[in-house]
Amino acid sequence: MEYTRESDRLVVRLDPGDRVLDSLETLRDEEDVDHGFLVGIGAVDEVVLGHYDVESQEYSEETFTGQFEVTSFSGNIGPDKIHTHIQVADEEFETLGGHCSGAVVSGTFEIVVLLGETQLPHHLDERTGLDVFDL
Amino acid sequence: MEYTRESDRLVVRLDPGDRVLDSLETLRDEEDVDHGFLVGIGAVDEVVLGHYDVESQEYSEETFTGQFEVTSFSGNIGPDKIHTHIQVADEEFETLGGHCSGAVVSGTFEIVVLLGETQLPHHLDERTGLDVFDL
Amino acid sequence: MEYTRESDRLVVRLDPGDRVLDSLETLRDEEDVDHGFLVGIGAVDEVVLGHYDVESQEYSEETFTGQFEVTSFSGNIGPDKIHTHIQVADEEFETLGGHCSGAVVSGTFEIVVLLGETQLPHHLDERTGLDVFDL
Repeated sequence: MEYTRESDRLVVRLDPGDRVLDSLETLRDEEDVDHGFLVGIGAVDEVVLGHYDVESQEYSEETFTGQFEVTSFSGNIGPDKIHTHIQVADEEFETLGGHCSGAVVSGTFEIVVLLGETQLPHHLDERTGLDVFDL
Repeated sequence: MEYTRESDRLVVRLDPGDRVLDSLETLRDEEDVDHGFLVGIGAVDEVVLGHYDVESQEYSEETFTGQFEVTSFSGNIGPDKIHTHIQVADEEFETLGGHCSGAVVSGTFEIVVLLGETQLPHHLDERTGLDVFDL
Repeated sequence: MEYTRESDRLVVRLDPGDRVLDSLETLRDEEDVDHGFLVGIGAVDEVVLGHYDVESQEYSEETFTGQFEVTSFSGNIGPDKIHTHIQVADEEFETLGGHCSGAVVSGTFEIVVLLGETQLPHHLDERTGLDVFDL
C-alpha cells in the first residue's frame, strides 16, 4: 500500500497481494482517520462476499476466486468499524456483489477516502443486530 | 433517519422501514441542500427498479422484494429532482440494478451527501424527455 | 457536454451521443485538472467493457449495445490516464460490468469530479503490466 494525504482526502494505491480491509485498517491507524467515506476501483483475485439476514441476524459468506474487475467499492471508515460493499465482474462481464468481508488485490486498487471532521462511532441496533452509525 | 452535518457533507443513517427517496427529500428540505452528490451502501427488503426507454420516453418499473445488500447507490440531489441509481445483490450474491424509483431499508443504510455551493436545477431535454442538469 | 466548476468539484452533464471517456479528457484539458476522483450515473446505448488478465497482461474487450442504465460509474482522472469502471443494467434489470473502455451516452450522464490538489501521475508496475498511481 502507498498513499498520499491532501487536505480533504487520502489517495490510496493497493498492490498485488494486499488485503483490502486490512490495508484500510492500517491506513486508519496510521493517519488517525476520524471518519471517511470511500470509493474505489481495482482488480482482485479473491473476494469474500457477505449477505446479512436481518431475521436470523447472521451473515452468510462465500469466497470467490478468479480474475475479477471491481466495478464498485464503496463504504466508510469509522473508529470502530470499516464497512464496505463490493461489486465484481468476471471475464464474461457477469457480476457478483454483496457486503465485502475480504478481498485480495491482483492488479491494482485505487481508493479515495474523503476525510470527515468528526468521529463516526457505532452502536448496536437491537432490532437488526447491526452496529450502526451513532448519530 | 438520523444525520449529522459537517462543513462539506451530510452523514446519514436510515433505519428499518425508512423509504430512501422520501428520506432524502426530507433531508434536502430540512438542511436546505443547494445540491449534493451522494454515495451509499445498506440493505433493503424492497426496491423499485426503473429502466428508461429513450425512444418511447417512458420508464418501465418493477418491484423486487427480498433481502438485498445494496452494492452501490449513487446520484444527486437538486432543488427540483433527486436522481439515484441502485444496484442490489441477493443471498446468492447475484445482482440487479437500474434507476432507483424507490427502496425500503431493512438493515441500515449509510449515505454521505457531498454538499455543493450552488443550486443545481433541471430543465427538460426534449430529445430524450428527461429533466437534465441546467448548466 | 456542459459543466460548471465549484471550488472543490466539477459538475458535468453529458448529452446524447457524447463519448464518456473523450468528454472526460476534454474536461481535464479545459479545466487543468490535477487529479480528480469521479462518480456518476446515466444511460448509455453502447458500452465497451474490458477485463484485464494479470497473467497475460492483456485486456479483453467486448462491445455491448442496447438501452442501459449506468448503475455505477467511478474512477479517477490523472494527467496521463483516465481510469474508470462501469456497471450497467438492461431492461430486465440484469447487469454487466467491467473496466470502462468506452461508452456512448443515450439519455443523460451526470458526473461529479472531486478535484484534488496535486498531480496524480502513473508509472508502470512491471509485475502486472499496469500503469498505477505513482505515490
